[in-house]
Amino acid sequence: MALKSFIHVHPDSHFPIQNLPYGAFKTHSTTLPRLGVAIGDYVLDLSEITKSGLFNSPLLAGSDCFLKPTLNKFLAMGRPAWKEARDTLQKLLSSTEPALRDNMELRQKALVPMSEVEMVLPMEIGDYTDFFSSMHHAKNCGTIFVGPKNPIAPNWFRLPIAYHGRASSVVISGTDIIRPRGQGHPTGNSTPYFGPSLKLDFELEMATVVGPGNELGKTIDVNEAADHIFGVVLMNDWSARDIQAWEYVPLGPFLGKSFGTTISPWIVTLDALQPFACDASKQDPPPLPYLAEKISKNYDIALEVQIKPSGQKDSSVVTRSNLKNLYWTLTQQLAHHTINGCNLRPGDLLGTGTISGPEPDSLGCLLELTWNGQKALSLNGTTRKFLEDGDEVIFTGCCKGDGYNVGFGTCTGKVVPPRD
Amino acid sequence: MALKSFIHVHPDSHFPIQNLPYGAFKTHSTTLPRLGVAIGDYVLDLSEITKSGLFNSPLLAGSDCFLKPTLNKFLAMGRPAWKEARDTLQKLLSSTEPALRDNMELRQKALVPMSEVEMVLPMEIGDYTDFFSSMHHAKNCGTIFVGPKNPIAPNWFRLPIAYHGRASSVVISGTDIIRPRGQGHPTGNSTPYFGPSLKLDFELEMATVVGPGNELGKTIDVNEAADHIFGVVLMNDWSARDIQAWEYVPLGPFLGKSFGTTISPWIVTLDALQPFACDASKQDPPPLPYLAEKISKNYDIALEVQIKPSGQKDSSVVTRSNLKNLYWTLTQQLAHHTINGCNLRPGDLLGTGTISGPEPDSLGCLLELTWNGQKALSLNGTTRKFLEDGDEVIFTGCCKGDGYNVGFGTCTGKVVPPRD
Ligand SMILES: [Ca+2]
Ligand SMILES: [Ca+2]
Ligand SMILES: [Mg+2]
Ligand SMILES: [Mg+2]
Ligand code: NI
Repeated sequence: MALKSFIHVHPDSHFPIQNLPYGAFKTHSTTLPRLGVAIGDYVLDLSEITKSGLFNSPLLAGSDCFLKPTLNKFLAMGRPAWKEARDTLQKLLSSTEPALRDNMELRQKALVPMSEVEMVLPMEIGDYTDFFSSMHHAKNCGTIFVGPKNPIAPNWFRLPIAYHGRASSVVISGTDIIRPRGQGHPTGNSTPYFGPSLKLDFELEMATVVGPGNELGKTIDVNEAADHIFGVVLMNDWSARDIQAWEYVPLGPFLGKSFGTTISPWIVTLDALQPFACDASKQDPPPLPYLAEKISKNYDIALEVQIKPSGQKDSSVVTRSNLKNLYWTLTQQLAHHTINGCNLRPGDLLGTGTISGPEPDSLGCLLELTWNGQKALSLNGTTRKFLEDGDEVIFTGCCKGDGYNVGFGTCTGKVVPPRD
Repeated sequence: MALKSFIHVHPDSHFPIQNLPYGAFKTHSTTLPRLGVAIGDYVLDLSEITKSGLFNSPLLAGSDCFLKPTLNKFLAMGRPAWKEARDTLQKLLSSTEPALRDNMELRQKALVPMSEVEMVLPMEIGDYTDFFSSMHHAKNCGTIFVGPKNPIAPNWFRLPIAYHGRASSVVISGTDIIRPRGQGHPTGNSTPYFGPSLKLDFELEMATVVGPGNELGKTIDVNEAADHIFGVVLMNDWSARDIQAWEYVPLGPFLGKSFGTTISPWIVTLDALQPFACDASKQDPPPLPYLAEKISKNYDIALEVQIKPSGQKDSSVVTRSNLKNLYWTLTQQLAHHTINGCNLRPGDLLGTGTISGPEPDSLGCLLELTWNGQKALSLNGTTRKFLEDGDEVIFTGCCKGDGYNVGFGTCTGKVVPPRD
């Protein structure tokens, strides 16, 4: 019989007992953020569970990791501690276990309705890296910017291309995104344009949250890389295409990206995703030995992007994709990142890159969907080439299990005009 | 009469009372790092000065900013607090002031010989950015990689090009640099090379240490940018040219840089550099209004690079340059960084980019000095195209005042073979 919680969980909820994603939250009565896991429409406050002494497994008994305002300490403890926490929490929340179920005082303190919490960034992000691992996205971008002849550079098939992103401007779902100002250079103009970006876009991504890191100068083996991945989030790598196009030669994206990057509040653990593992894409040419995995896995995570224009009641689906569309795996990304000895730290964020699929309705950004603004996208009576002020962009991600979901909730942000 | 300290300072010292650069250090007896300023051959321990109650100015009296293990809190306090600290310390250290001079017990505790300390990173670096602001460097790199026709892309003259770097691998002077492994792709080869980098290089740079930051979505005006700059350090942006050349299209440098970046331990304040301010380079075309400064300043800082091969007694000077060689100013770099609303935080590091001058012996990296390995550089009886294991690279930087120097000390690192 399937594992079941004493908490009522709707069948279409993203947060059944099989999931238990981690996040950080504030309430009216708390000043510092607290750590919790999502269960149905509730957040289980892990500081209360700690204080009640219910974390009694070898690595967690007596630990203050869940009394901190961020997950970094827990992330550093690694998979054995993560497994203990998952086992303890699944047991505590199960319908057959009385310890929490029948302790009304503790339930009152530890189970906070989601509607009463404000989610905040669950970890301190030392460094944020963004990969470029969907072949369809690479091909489309290359065709738009370089031309159809050799849209994908030959290095792309040999290594997971990436760039360092900006950690300071990673924000939690729900934060307004202020339209960036900057320089653009429309073709034919000799003086650059300066002003609010005219080509604001979203990028549908997911991102790995790093667990234990590595020492500077050491590498992480690709076959052990999964032990350094705590979980994944949804990520919107907002992009100003006009700023990006003008600035990126020869050192890559900078201000076209660094005005904001949104992540979903709940980190779904790699353990919760295991039932949804699937074969990774076939790679041809075969990867060099340091990237060759004994078992090369991806995850079947259905992704959807909706846009809700200001003043409209309903949002419109603009794309449907899947993490499966990645060419390079999360573990290859992580191992490659360390092959030069670069040190990862707990809480680091590794974006996948825009996750585009092969079909026209599975493209992960407006740049591709509107072919750089050449054709408009229909949105429930209106149209879009790029994002307008007031547009809310809503990502969802979900794995369909047998009678339950393991979902990510949403990752949202509304575009607002520049300040100053 | 010139300001003079009761501490004996050699005339060629980098650290007279006119300088007073900030750093963080450890001794045999301390566990946590402490903050200090350099004076002659001593470090003045600012925690001892704080505990003695000698910081008695309005903003510093009662503050714990110098009891912290990093400068971040002090950096956030801004120029008024920095001025108070400088005034207090110049007074305390002056030959005419008895408070410290005649307090032998405090002198014993607070003045630590430099030979007895280990310097550590003086700040937590939230984000590290690297600019590309020497025209000579941009022209030489473009000629080598793109060809002599249009070596500098047109955007370069319109904005200070930059990329996000890796914060986790910024290390303090004296840290060994482990030769990175990675992929390269020598011309004509279809399968990439994998192994230790064959083209390891240094890059002669300086870097701004950010003081007060800005809120996400707000900008910093170019004419107020200097108030957000605490000071500058020497920086070696070690670069693996083979890895960089193969990976950088289209998203810029990644693993070719992120294996290590060395900074000098002493942050020379902008206040100490004021006597060495000079006119900035003329900019043509004129910068867009948001980059146009009422007063556009650079600093006359003589820079030198030496290489000391393993087993040789002496090091050889390989280049002499000057911060003056920059086209874009430090304040333009900082203002540009925020024009899209990107938030800077106290302690952020903004590298200038390789500081090459116009002459053949003023080029800031081996890529330029050896023209990508096409000609060898003479080094005291041996030669180099790129760095070999055991090579120590030593940067120095110094401003020549009237009878005194304001210097940076050295920024050094020795290349060692890969581990594992
Ligand atoms: Ca992206
Ligand atoms: Ca550089
Ligand atoms: Mg972004
Ligand atoms: Mg570097
Ligand atoms: Ni960073």
